[in-house]
Amino acid sequence: MQAAILAVGSELLGTERLDTNSLRLTAVLERHGVELRRKMVVGDSEAEIAAALGEALARVDLVLITGGLGPTADDVTREAVAAALGLPIVIDPEVLAGIERRFQKLGWKMPEVNRKQAAVVGGSQVLANSRGSAPGMRLDISAAGRPAPATLFLFPGVPSELTGMIVEYLEPWLAERSGGISRETAVLKIAGLPESLVEERITPAYGEFGRESITILAKPGDVLLVASAVGDAGQRRERLRAMTERLAGLVGDAVYAYSEEQTLESVVGDLLRGAAATLTVAESCTGGLLAERLTRVAGSSDYFLGGVVTYSNRLKTSLVRVPEALLAEHGAVSEAVARAMAEGVRAALGSDYGAAITGIAGPGGGSEEKPVGTVHLALAGPPVAPAAPGLAAPPVSSVPQIPPIPPTVEHRLLRLPGDRERIRWQSTQILLDMLRRRLLAAGTVAPA
Amino acid sequence: MQAAILAVGSELLGTERLDTNSLRLTAVLERHGVELRRKMVVGDSEAEIAAALGEALARVDLVLITGGLGPTADDVTREAVAAALGLPIVIDPEVLAGIERRFQKLGWKMPEVNRKQAAVVGGSQVLANSRGSAPGMRLDISAAGRPAPATLFLFPGVPSELTGMIVEYLEPWLAERSGGISRETAVLKIAGLPESLVEERITPAYGEFGRESITILAKPGDVLLVASAVGDAGQRRERLRAMTERLAGLVGDAVYAYSEEQTLESVVGDLLRGAAATLTVAESCTGGLLAERLTRVAGSSDYFLGGVVTYSNRLKTSLVRVPEALLAEHGAVSEAVARAMAEGVRAALGSDYGAAITGIAGPGGGSEEKPVGTVHLALAGPPVAPAAPGLAAPPVSSVPQIPPIPPTVEHRLLRLPGDRERIRWQSTQILLDMLRRRLLAAGTVAPA
Repeated sequence: MQAAILAVGSELLGTERLDTNSLRLTAVLERHGVELRRKMVVGDSEAEIAAALGEALARVDLVLITGGLGPTADDVTREAVAAALGLPIVIDPEVLAGIERRFQKLGWKMPEVNRKQAAVVGGSQVLANSRGSAPGMRLDISAAGRPAPATLFLFPGVPSELTGMIVEYLEPWLAERSGGISRETAVLKIAGLPESLVEERITPAYGEFGRESITILAKPGDVLLVASAVGDAGQRRERLRAMTERLAGLVGDAVYAYSEEQTLESVVGDLLRGAAATLTVAESCTGGLLAERLTRVAGSSDYFLGGVVTYSNRLKTSLVRVPEALLAEHGAVSEAVARAMAEGVRAALGSDYGAAITGIAGPGGGSEEKPVGTVHLALAGPPVAPAAPGLAAPPVSSVPQIPPIPPTVEHRLLRLPGDRERIRWQSTQILLDMLRRRLLAAGTVAPA
Repeated sequence: MQAAILAVGSELLGTERLDTNSLRLTAVLERHGVELRRKMVVGDSEAEIAAALGEALARVDLVLITGGLGPTADDVTREAVAAALGLPIVIDPEVLAGIERRFQKLGWKMPEVNRKQAAVVGGSQVLANSRGSAPGMRLDISAAGRPAPATLFLFPGVPSELTGMIVEYLEPWLAERSGGISRETAVLKIAGLPESLVEERITPAYGEFGRESITILAKPGDVLLVASAVGDAGQRRERLRAMTERLAGLVGDAVYAYSEEQTLESVVGDLLRGAAATLTVAESCTGGLLAERLTRVAGSSDYFLGGVVTYSNRLKTSLVRVPEALLAEHGAVSEAVARAMAEGVRAALGSDYGAAITGIAGPGGGSEEKPVGTVHLALAGPPVAPAAPGLAAPPVSSVPQIPPIPPTVEHRLLRLPGDRERIRWQSTQILLDMLRRRLLAAGTVAPA
């Protein structure tokens, strides 16, 4: 079954509101394996509604219309549907009695304008609306020239009323046809690879599973793969398992999560907690974004001790002990200073890992040698390599500790495209991925 | 002129994402008096895109398409448009060279898949994309059977790229046709008042200017009023001036800006720069969000020296000198500690103003006495009151300085509703508004 959603309402063509009702409808359609082919929004115009309905019916066999069923003059969905299908408008006596009762209960006489809400498209199945006065309708259309009959639902646009009618009418109708829930998805989240490179890597999976069953959603430095499977419960589970395994194999260790709820910062947090390790950060161009991302995660105080935003050079020296000579010789945006910041914040604030970012986020401040987008990342922490033979094993303890041997400091130089916001975001994204890989590597040396 | 917007992307037919790009396009259309007749969303399917384009062209004379111009296999907008209009696809050598240069600058070889982004619809005007690699296109369509020629724009779906192309290409093209902007808006941005209270205050203006000419857009702690006027240039200017003045009078000093580009952090930044004053911050529950917001503003290094995220109690003592006894007696979330953090960060980091936030963002950590949403704000700075008579006037200097007299520390206790993200946002919003009011008050005592 293929579907289209048509939202009616001039306010949905303005600059303020979007048709969010379609998301609820889409969720129900997906669960029942109905493919949504298009969404449309038109204003409160009979001609526009009728045209959109005609176009939709030419391409799909289920059309869901929301809005335009109210009592006011600009509510014209009934009339448009009747005109498009060559059907009459009739007053439904039962609906009319129900509306009159509602007003009586409030102690009011029904305003004449509400009489219109008892108008229904002739030949439709009227769907009572327990949360409001405008009923919905279902129409089965088997016009000459159609290869197969189509179905049309008319729903009110008020979200609470729509939600009720989805549960009462749409869901049971779909369940009867689909014989149970039939579509499921699995996700893979990927850090640090551009969308085009992810696409290149997963191309074999398109051939094996069908291109339409894999979707790529990308934002800078963060790619989401969505795999979907149709069938009975066993088939879906088996197919999603196979797709996930294959995609993970093709993408490699850039996959950082298998659920949409997990973020790069929550994954890093789980790894830190698992290693009973602590983290501090020193930020310059990202101005606190790294700390802010880390602390979006509830419970991050388990492993994140704090950080410093050393926006001025003076604070780089006073807070994280970057030697003035180093700043003078290399400049604040340099490998030497990034390394010194990472080591300095780790030592000064007393954590297992220390991360640092210094760069030029723009729009000003760039030069020929160090253009906007130049960013140095550094990560200081316990040595990654296993202890050399002959040395005693370090004492095992669940209490975070700073080993007496000098930390290993990794460094990366980035040349990032984009504007200030994007450069700042990408810098934190790549640093978090460095930290994730470092913690994974540390974990393989000394598994918990 | 009548327009339709067609958004392309299978992800826009899922349960997560809506086509928000259409809102930006609608704003530009409205400004130029173009009526939007319909919006459509289709997936990454040549047949669906071509059908939707055909339907739109039958009803309007301007079609704006977004999305599906990327490098991956599921980006098929070009092919669909070419097929629908019977035009060929050609490789644009200039675009290809540009894409290759972008990859060279990043030190990468262009992946073969990106070659596709140089493919354009034959006969189109290619619109260079300075923010990404996929160019846009404009096509003038004067097919037989059309009463009047139509125009088609193809834009990338990435919001930042689209925004750039609207400014560079769509807006000038529309301005040429509309003979000047025919609808104009003015905005007022309001901090620290709930939407319902703003609505109550401005009710008289609804009667005076018409309800439909004033729109309220709200997010937590930040309300945007949009006043709109139609007419010739003189009428619009006069009406917007009158509306702005009236609304500002009704709302009062909670209005912090009169342009959409200004943010609370940029307004605070301008005030700090104007006062030649410097700022440092100490954050606990907001975890760096305050520093991050301040440094979103380009040039913020003029006044923002840096900050500390003292997530652990130990760092509150070591970085901003909060006495351990104070923490033990009152707890980290207390007025006494907030005040000590503000004074401490100001003194330790050497700035004119020091701001501090400590609270419980949740979901865990709340108690009967200090529930989730309990937040203490403090702001330390030069005394607000004018110098007492008989005392010598303080030395005037453009160099930022810390007065030798003890700072004035303001404090606010908040009980915020909502989830972790909202509590963190609101805390920074209200602190920034405290700082704005303090700087304004300081400015009236000693105007620059």
